Amino acid sequence: MIVTPQSMSFSQPLALRSGASIRDYSLAFETYGTLNADRSNAVLICHALNASHHVAGSYAGQPDSEGWWDTMIGPGKPVDTDRFFVIGVNNLGSCFGSTGPMHVNPDTGKVYGADFPVVTVEDWVDAQARLLDAMGIERLAAVMGGSLGGMQALSWTLQYPRRVRHGVVIASAPNLTAENIAFNEVARRAIVTDPDFHGGNFYEHGVVPKRGLRIARMIGHITYLSDDVMNEKFGRRLRSAVAEAGNAPDGVDLRYSTQEIEFQIESYLRYQGDKFSEYFDANTYLLITRALDYFDPALQYEGNLAKALARATARFLLVSFSTDWRFAPRRSRELVKGLLDNGRDLSYAEIDAPHGHDAFLLEDPRYLGTVRSYFERIGQEIGS
Amino acid sequence: MIVTPQSMSFSQPLALRSGASIRDYSLAFETYGTLNADRSNAVLICHALNASHHVAGSYAGQPDSEGWWDTMIGPGKPVDTDRFFVIGVNNLGSCFGSTGPMHVNPDTGKVYGADFPVVTVEDWVDAQARLLDAMGIERLAAVMGGSLGGMQALSWTLQYPRRVRHGVVIASAPNLTAENIAFNEVARRAIVTDPDFHGGNFYEHGVVPKRGLRIARMIGHITYLSDDVMNEKFGRRLRSAVAEAGNAPDGVDLRYSTQEIEFQIESYLRYQGDKFSEYFDANTYLLITRALDYFDPALQYEGNLAKALARATARFLLVSFSTDWRFAPRRSRELVKGLLDNGRDLSYAEIDAPHGHDAFLLEDPRYLGTVRSYFERIGQEIGS
Repeated sequence: MIVTPQSMSFSQPLALRSGASIRDYSLAFETYGTLNADRSNAVLICHALNASHHVAGSYAGQPDSEGWWDTMIGPGKPVDTDRFFVIGVNNLGSCFGSTGPMHVNPDTGKVYGADFPVVTVEDWVDAQARLLDAMGIERLAAVMGGSLGGMQALSWTLQYPRRVRHGVVIASAPNLTAENIAFNEVARRAIVTDPDFHGGNFYEHGVVPKRGLRIARMIGHITYLSDDVMNEKFGRRLRSAVAEAGNAPDGVDLRYSTQEIEFQIESYLRYQGDKFSEYFDANTYLLITRALDYFDPALQYEGNLAKALARATARFLLVSFSTDWRFAPRRSRELVKGLLDNGRDLSYAEIDAPHGHDAFLLEDPRYLGTVRSYFERIGQEIGS
Repeated sequence: MIVTPQSMSFSQPLALRSGASIRDYSLAFETYGTLNADRSNAVLICHALNASHHVAGSYAGQPDSEGWWDTMIGPGKPVDTDRFFVIGVNNLGSCFGSTGPMHVNPDTGKVYGADFPVVTVEDWVDAQARLLDAMGIERLAAVMGGSLGGMQALSWTLQYPRRVRHGVVIASAPNLTAENIAFNEVARRAIVTDPDFHGGNFYEHGVVPKRGLRIARMIGHITYLSDDVMNEKFGRRLRSAVAEAGNAPDGVDLRYSTQEIEFQIESYLRYQGDKFSEYFDANTYLLITRALDYFDPALQYEGNLAKALARATARFLLVSFSTDWRFAPRRSRELVKGLLDNGRDLSYAEIDAPHGHDAFLLEDPRYLGTVRSYFERIGQEIGS
């Protein structure tokens, strides 16, 4: 499936939860499949921290440019673009095409940098709703996302209950735990205290706070993987091939160094950190982790999640993964309970998968089969 | 109990596992209680990353200077200094009095800095054994430690089996998992990439890589606490008192900031990081986390832990804590199984405690009671 990114500009100010507003912004998006005559087969995909509007397919002439959820979405795939019109949109504040901190603030004529307004999950949903308005889509067959994307999908069902038939919330949570916030905070401190951050205005200094971004990404990667899969993939294996082949059983091949790489897991993390620091925007990292921290639909209901979810009228598919310790199954069960307390119609699958939080992006037949079945049901409902 | 730190110098070179050696070093230590006539009541306490020889009691005129395991050790306490002669020793490479990276290398006349040799758990045990030699203690009633200290206690029973009656190994593991190493590596990268680290020779630049130390400590603190206790202590509570008191149920008291503190957990972590960066040495942090990474007594036995433990002749008390995800109970159970496979005499207590890895330093009546009973048995054995 060859796809082409698009962009839409919005001149009217969008009021944000912080009290600020943003105007003259644009959203990058992609669509796959065909909107049917009664405009009932649209599926919106919401992305997590490090993803974009490029959800599925490849760009012409770039065979390795598959979208981040290409296993899930495309012709004949679980979310079948032969039946559904699928929309991916890059969120405000991100760094893959939509207006973000690296763009010019129309109020000042200068690059936003640290002055880019704080955006919340709710703000993103509002911006996505405007995009759908412009596309003439009144009601979504489904809104779907994993992790932070799942929070957006959930928030859609609360902010625009009548515009959503189905909410598909994968590897997500009703809010972050203290530990989740703690990991975000360490990553942010690593970025903010990098001397190359310059208070968020590093663009004008011609530098990038790569040290901080590397640390942030390394922390992220640890929390995306399960302890088990890390042990299986890396264990205590040394980077040196000799020891790896078992030829150095007495440990003679150890380097005894505090700074050189000794274990394969170190090599992996450094590589992931380096790669990330080459392309990800530091201010975007702060904004997106903060949106995660702030998301808490029960806050206005004295922490009563069932009350917060009472607004939702959609039907739901929720999925969690047994070894996900970032957004553990018990967090999805909180959502299940809150929805059941309101008598909502839902399906819940707890997938026994070894990969931790990352599992939501991987090919697991039970997982993909569950989503496929659910979307077949949606297709039948809307006659698509 | 008023205590006084002591120091002992060693001129003879100590051969290290790396192949290097260290000479003209000194060890800071403290002792509590009285060595009995047949020198049979000595208990060695081994410390973890951020602790020292100051295990128990207080310094004269400094009532708030209690040792790090003062709940455990002292007159009438579980390790009763009215019966036992307890020794605390600061490890080589640490920053609390023993020779470390901030001291002068006798070979060069310059501060060691990054040139301080890599030290292993086994090297520390060798250095501790020399200290005991100098004190005229041939055999320990017990060697005891938690976390990295537990690794040293275990290693004592393998390196000097005839010198140890009892090994008390608390909240420890036979080696680090890939995830454990990963957290250490991120912390080390934060320190090493801090521009103030200067390749480990920051002393001569008159600076300290505080940014890196702060990040390292924040990561550490997350892994010391359980998710549950973090939720209980901090949850999603905001730093602002108004919101905390429940007067801002609609979230109006949110600051909507990516850099200011919003949640109490952020405030806690920043405080811990700041405090740590004021006193802990960056090179010591690298050395001690590396000693953790390297510890793996089964390495020479093709990963067969039971074979590795066959050398031990001591009796053992092992303790783990249910919510410790850094050194989880299953890691202690690996040790239990390896010892039982060799027919060793051991007691194992898995304490149901909410505090995570930190539990080994806290007052829990079942935990302290277990250790008390075990040391009463040791006391009876040696007639002390």
